[in-house]
Amino acid sequence: MKVAVLTGGVGGAKLVLGLSRVVHGSDLVAIVNTADDFRHLGLHVSPDVDTLLYTLAGKANAVQGWGREGETWSFMAALRELGGEDWFLLGDHDLALHVLRTAAMLRGETLSAVTHRFVRAWSIGAEILPMSDQPVTTEVETDAGRLPFQKYFVEQRCAPAVRCISFVGVEVARPAAGVIEAIHGADAVIVAPSNPFLSIDPILAVPGIRQSLETTAAPVVAVSPIVGGQAVKGPMAKLMRELDLEVNNAMIARHYAGVVDGLLINEGDDAPEGAIAVEQADTMMHTIADKVRVARAALDLAQRIGRA
Amino acid sequence: MKVAVLTGGVGGAKLVLGLSRVVHGSDLVAIVNTADDFRHLGLHVSPDVDTLLYTLAGKANAVQGWGREGETWSFMAALRELGGEDWFLLGDHDLALHVLRTAAMLRGETLSAVTHRFVRAWSIGAEILPMSDQPVTTEVETDAGRLPFQKYFVEQRCAPAVRCISFVGVEVARPAAGVIEAIHGADAVIVAPSNPFLSIDPILAVPGIRQSLETTAAPVVAVSPIVGGQAVKGPMAKLMRELDLEVNNAMIARHYAGVVDGLLINEGDDAPEGAIAVEQADTMMHTIADKVRVARAALDLAQRIGRA
Repeated sequence: MKVAVLTGGVGGAKLVLGLSRVVHGSDLVAIVNTADDFRHLGLHVSPDVDTLLYTLAGKANAVQGWGREGETWSFMAALRELGGEDWFLLGDHDLALHVLRTAAMLRGETLSAVTHRFVRAWSIGAEILPMSDQPVTTEVETDAGRLPFQKYFVEQRCAPAVRCISFVGVEVARPAAGVIEAIHGADAVIVAPSNPFLSIDPILAVPGIRQSLETTAAPVVAVSPIVGGQAVKGPMAKLMRELDLEVNNAMIARHYAGVVDGLLINEGDDAPEGAIAVEQADTMMHTIADKVRVARAALDLAQRIGRA
Repeated sequence: MKVAVLTGGVGGAKLVLGLSRVVHGSDLVAIVNTADDFRHLGLHVSPDVDTLLYTLAGKANAVQGWGREGETWSFMAALRELGGEDWFLLGDHDLALHVLRTAAMLRGETLSAVTHRFVRAWSIGAEILPMSDQPVTTEVETDAGRLPFQKYFVEQRCAPAVRCISFVGVEVARPAAGVIEAIHGADAVIVAPSNPFLSIDPILAVPGIRQSLETTAAPVVAVSPIVGGQAVKGPMAKLMRELDLEVNNAMIARHYAGVVDGLLINEGDDAPEGAIAVEQADTMMHTIADKVRVARAALDLAQRIGRA
């Protein structure tokens, strides 16, 4: 069974890890948001791609929720001594990814090609594809002015109220090699429970990707990021209020209308009405068993839709 | 008393440290070889400037002879996992210098300006001036082909026999701001016991620097890098044999003829004949007391020449 999954960072990576225990090797293709990518201290940082790499390589820091396990912080200490910008934390191990990636891209290598080398180096079975090799940058218009996403998210801790979100450069971006093929060649396409506005929308905004989801023969199933009327992780609930959106599955279903055929929601939450197929499951993902359970539930819903 | 000192890395830095205990604050100006600078993994590495920074900031690793004290190596471990080039060791703390410098230079800052910020951040009293802000690159013609210096020095451990040395780009380089002023404004100019061919020659080759040494009113004194007929440190003796040069102070005096007025040699070594003023001292520098002693001896010789 071939599966393509659209994903952002932390929340989505949990589902991708679950899928990787169910789907064989490179039959699983993760199509990853790169609109959070930014240059910091001259280095190309790709937060969601790195989270996928660390998670699938078994190197993610589970307690912290980001970065690497067993990380050390000598670089940051030396950086502070020298008066360098320290609002974004770069661990010593983590730096190896950023330095190698930046050097390779300076030599003309694509983000996809570098990512693929890292996937191989760490013997990750699944394929990890950046959504695009062209730069796309999420910027948020807030009551404190227009901010690049990482400044808003990390430095300002999502404090400013968001008025609108834009993906600068997306209209001239192209899907990375393999993205469209993975969607069209899949037996099921899964949309991970990442932030729809900040993590999935940039992927859908890359010209050609939304259309391929609309036209693929494969069933497309989203796992709702809402649990008990709350966003599980990150700034989503606050953001939805600021954008005058209700925090419920009806809104998620409306948001993904035309793109997804089914929605997996947390058991007990209100199901959206309408044409979309809905299934319930315990969608909280703490343990690896949870992640595998949610992965199976999403694939089961896709298979049910595929047979219908 | 104002002192300018021409220096390379490790050996020279010892003398500069000694001078910094004798000469007040920024009355001491170190003019540093940058022809060993190179880009590694996209980062601008400036080995001799960094050695000066670490040494004068009290952060140098005395046992290892290069790099920082208390260094950690997480970055290198992660780099190896990812198949990155690992022949040049970059410590986690050390990386902060390289990353900040590279980012600043990408923004258009000069190497001098970045170095000055580091000097300030670490409260170093002396001034550290790169010889030039234009790139100059030492390349060695060897029996194994033409090699960039760091490849020859670190990766090949000086194994190939050297036929000649060139400083690529030096003819269009300009002395960094302050270099010529420091030489003309000094009461004494010292040439540190660095490798004359690899560390001092590139400085002298920057158009204008040799001439300013020839014309300055200040006495110019070199501390010989030879002790007991041997080069104290590094690949110098081997290199001199390969270049058909005798390893003795007469050769050093000939090499610096026209540039230096005096030579401080190790006690017991043969003194060169000729017009140059010579003084003897114990020039081995292990302890800080040794370094201060050699610094004082070099300055005493300069004063003697100045009075003559």
